[in-house]
Amino acid sequence: MSQYQPPLSDIRFALYDVLGAEPLLARLGFADATRDIVDAVLEEGARFTATVLAPLNRVGDEIGCSYDKATGEVGTPPGFREAYNQYVEGGWPALTADPAYGGQGLPHLLGVPVKEMIDAANLAWGNFPLLSHGATEALLHHGEDWQREAFLKPLVDGRWTGTMCLTEAHCGTDLGLIRTRAVPRDDGSHAISGTKIFITAGEHDMTGNIVHLVLAKLPDAPAGSRGISLFVVPKMRVSRDGTMGERNAVRCGAIEHKMGIHGSATCVINFDEAEGYLVGEPNKGLMAMFTMMNTARLAVGLQGLGLSDRALQNAQRYARERLQSRAPGGARHPEKPADPIVVHPDVRRMLLTCRALVEGGRVLGYHAASLVDIIGNAADEAERRDADALLGFLTPIVKACLTEWGVECTYHALQCFGGHGYIREHGMEQLARDARITTLYEGTTGIQALDLVGRKLLQLQGEGLRVFLGMIESFCNEHAANPALDAFIAPLRQQARDWATLSRELATRAQANPDEIGAASVDYLFYSGYVALAYWWARSVAAAEASTRPEDFKTAKRETARFYYSRILPRTLAHRAAIEAGADTLMALPDEAF
Amino acid sequence: MSQYQPPLSDIRFALYDVLGAEPLLARLGFADATRDIVDAVLEEGARFTATVLAPLNRVGDEIGCSYDKATGEVGTPPGFREAYNQYVEGGWPALTADPAYGGQGLPHLLGVPVKEMIDAANLAWGNFPLLSHGATEALLHHGEDWQREAFLKPLVDGRWTGTMCLTEAHCGTDLGLIRTRAVPRDDGSHAISGTKIFITAGEHDMTGNIVHLVLAKLPDAPAGSRGISLFVVPKMRVSRDGTMGERNAVRCGAIEHKMGIHGSATCVINFDEAEGYLVGEPNKGLMAMFTMMNTARLAVGLQGLGLSDRALQNAQRYARERLQSRAPGGARHPEKPADPIVVHPDVRRMLLTCRALVEGGRVLGYHAASLVDIIGNAADEAERRDADALLGFLTPIVKACLTEWGVECTYHALQCFGGHGYIREHGMEQLARDARITTLYEGTTGIQALDLVGRKLLQLQGEGLRVFLGMIESFCNEHAANPALDAFIAPLRQQARDWATLSRELATRAQANPDEIGAASVDYLFYSGYVALAYWWARSVAAAEASTRPEDFKTAKRETARFYYSRILPRTLAHRAAIEAGADTLMALPDEAF
Repeated sequence: MSQYQPPLSDIRFALYDVLGAEPLLARLGFADATRDIVDAVLEEGARFTATVLAPLNRVGDEIGCSYDKATGEVGTPPGFREAYNQYVEGGWPALTADPAYGGQGLPHLLGVPVKEMIDAANLAWGNFPLLSHGATEALLHHGEDWQREAFLKPLVDGRWTGTMCLTEAHCGTDLGLIRTRAVPRDDGSHAISGTKIFITAGEHDMTGNIVHLVLAKLPDAPAGSRGISLFVVPKMRVSRDGTMGERNAVRCGAIEHKMGIHGSATCVINFDEAEGYLVGEPNKGLMAMFTMMNTARLAVGLQGLGLSDRALQNAQRYARERLQSRAPGGARHPEKPADPIVVHPDVRRMLLTCRALVEGGRVLGYHAASLVDIIGNAADEAERRDADALLGFLTPIVKACLTEWGVECTYHALQCFGGHGYIREHGMEQLARDARITTLYEGTTGIQALDLVGRKLLQLQGEGLRVFLGMIESFCNEHAANPALDAFIAPLRQQARDWATLSRELATRAQANPDEIGAASVDYLFYSGYVALAYWWARSVAAAEASTRPEDFKTAKRETARFYYSRILPRTLAHRAAIEAGADTLMALPDEAF
Repeated sequence: MSQYQPPLSDIRFALYDVLGAEPLLARLGFADATRDIVDAVLEEGARFTATVLAPLNRVGDEIGCSYDKATGEVGTPPGFREAYNQYVEGGWPALTADPAYGGQGLPHLLGVPVKEMIDAANLAWGNFPLLSHGATEALLHHGEDWQREAFLKPLVDGRWTGTMCLTEAHCGTDLGLIRTRAVPRDDGSHAISGTKIFITAGEHDMTGNIVHLVLAKLPDAPAGSRGISLFVVPKMRVSRDGTMGERNAVRCGAIEHKMGIHGSATCVINFDEAEGYLVGEPNKGLMAMFTMMNTARLAVGLQGLGLSDRALQNAQRYARERLQSRAPGGARHPEKPADPIVVHPDVRRMLLTCRALVEGGRVLGYHAASLVDIIGNAADEAERRDADALLGFLTPIVKACLTEWGVECTYHALQCFGGHGYIREHGMEQLARDARITTLYEGTTGIQALDLVGRKLLQLQGEGLRVFLGMIESFCNEHAANPALDAFIAPLRQQARDWATLSRELATRAQANPDEIGAASVDYLFYSGYVALAYWWARSVAAAEASTRPEDFKTAKRETARFYYSRILPRTLAHRAAIEAGADTLMALPDEAF
């Protein structure tokens, strides 16, 4: 099976050297997040994920979850529950949560590497605690006092887990169509009835309760997405004083059989006049749900990153060990029957593609998490406002690019194994199957791209882009005379300028014809992701040069950046051409032609 | 599960309108291949694949093959054997085979659409008869008279199937390392001992005998690939008069558990002093094996095409039926709760990408098959020679591009389904898993690319490219004043010119530094594939305009071509940049850095 070694060295580089975590966190008032503490957490996280979670990855895939039709109960794969108990005992669920509810109050910038390691070690397992975070956020920001008191502590300490119940069989993206109903009762609660599908961790045997956050319609609700309300519907009833009561009318009707993440329970959940409590304002549920969704989208981006890294690690090991043919210029190891395949330029092309996307993507994803910390903790209002705009702009990019790159990296890594990559026992094909869900759930890549162009670029007038372009410009000015960045500053400046122009032109066209948004959106999203990565790769080179890291580390960063600029960044040329092709090249044919 | 409707209309368009099959086949002397006959064969092939093979596709995946450790026997999925019997009764194995051995002698240009339909309907099933063709070719061209007499008839009529036994656990690409031994016996036969892996259809319950074509080393063989000989080793012994004897010492040791094609038996085959007979000259086995491999490579390309088409068909249907959200410019179907998702530009982008790659790829693949017919039947020697050079040049492009596009199209098609694409019952994820093998077996994409650049472009001095560029130039000259091709001729000319220049520059650099071959090869292969497709799309538009097809057919071809030129062809820009980046961007880091 595939192996996993948490990449602590590169995680530290991203945190401390590129993102300047030490001064940043000190400035934001995270008194407990000293380098000693952060390092200790990372090391313990590495130990837990590598020794407890990673060994369960294959059994999760091979055995998967089980469903008992008679009771509606879901069994998790062997070892999953015990691992969850260790996770709770280790205090991991509370890591970044609010101390008011038992959280440790550590920064999200520390939460993300832990999340990355969990996902790389065992994506399916990671899906059980995943949505507790979003449920916590939704209740924290929109819940009534008693709801916060009753639900947050057990969610934060991991005694309970949370879910997001949005999708129904006939609607996913278009939540205005949902049919789940909420009928008010005299006691202030609501009777929730309906069927939700694709509910991650909707039922399992790990915790005593499961807290469902459910979108439903009140009897007098307006049609469409303006008539959706959010409810908290626990599996076991919870009274206003927080005591857990008897079983609620919530039942798992089936689990899905999927391409991958077999160890993750994807449930059909039936609500049959289940007792639920309104969260936030009536008919404003979609907004409350977005609070959860943005958190979840960043988290899914990290899933793509984690899988990419694990795939890369295994491909590198295989490329060093597999002996086959000779180096093109002549035998590199004449004493062996053949050279290791890492001598071949094309194998290196695949490995370097993964490395450029993984290491660059790591900084991209971590930076987004640092914005969450800035929004929550910066003293300066303008800084908070800019961070908020930037995070909004980057969230769809992080979600979609890191997951699409996850599909790509698991593809290349499997390809490095040749035919052996297709065989289950090597574990590479599991990574590819598991990665495939990440571009679908929490909004497909297409949906992320519509959010980016339709909402963040047009409705919000590209405020986040402006902030990001400002960062690039400052960096370029600062390093204009830095000889270590000779190869990078001029093309980065040019890319940023083109990005600004392209964005302006797209906005203009889209105002005239709304089809232009979707006609350009996915290409624009990738374009943006590649320019963002160019920025982070240039900063990574600058950070490596300025550090006390050994020469071979600096060389590896510099050469990977050079590879990125010369062989990956030119993908923007193709995306640009597609963006400029306009909507007519897609819309000319009538619907019936498909 | 996913559906499949053989695309007879577009198959006929590719054959008759674009490739001019009628005059071509008449000129090549295929007297039996009249349009009536060809159409009848296509319709019967469509019936057989759609009604017999396609319904078995999911059961093949869900149940897969079974292996009996005690007997070494392999069971095929329910229905597979009965379908094979129908295939034999229908005379399908003999379709394009030599009449001297019971074949029908029909052109390969007719064989390929039948192959495409089989693969689209049931890829795993198609792998059982797949390699009989290569075994037949190897014996026909390199076998002794008695071997041809004894083996060809039952292979041609389908009573027996064939295999290619190349790979061993420690070597796949580098066959010089094989350890399987062949010891001469007094009776002229050889005792074959060794273990081969990844043997497609190496053992099964469909036929009374299985004819293994096995690479092995003679006792006095030179080291490396110049010391490999080819042997025919039947599962049941066959005497020189063709009578089948008792069981040979050939045994299936295991079947692999794979990501996909579960219905296809991928076997470990143990030879334990099995009786084998030398095919061709001693130590010249690799050359004989190439005869099989080129045939198999084109066939695997068609697998990619078939899966792409099936995926596209299902995605189009889903996009027409799934109601979700409204068209960007306002409701298209106000009477329904939402519009079908085909109204969204981004959904069309995915569908049109698949369509451009499927319909263009179909002509690309069929054209390669027509070259096989020309090589075998053209009266003019220069025509045969050109066709041979061109086929050699196109084979790695067809194999690698059609399979990589198969991965891409199954990706897009699954993505159109959103989360439902990840659920097994919809069948889209099976297509994606099945497609994943095609870029690996019969030589990975990387190996195809090395063949293209190292052998076809450098060693053979780009003779095939010269022929292809000549075809493009003639076409452009012929249609310079055709208003229907206004949008295509100028960019096609430019692409062809750039391709020639890029090829010349690459050849020059590769002569100075052998690392440049592998550093550019995969990008050069894709570059070539996209230019080739641009040519076939322009020709498709010309053929549609010149035909009596209805207007909506012509419009669909023209608009898909326009989509291809404006949104897919620009990928060449990124590939070109990567090619020009050179080997240094890959080789600068030491091996230990990986």
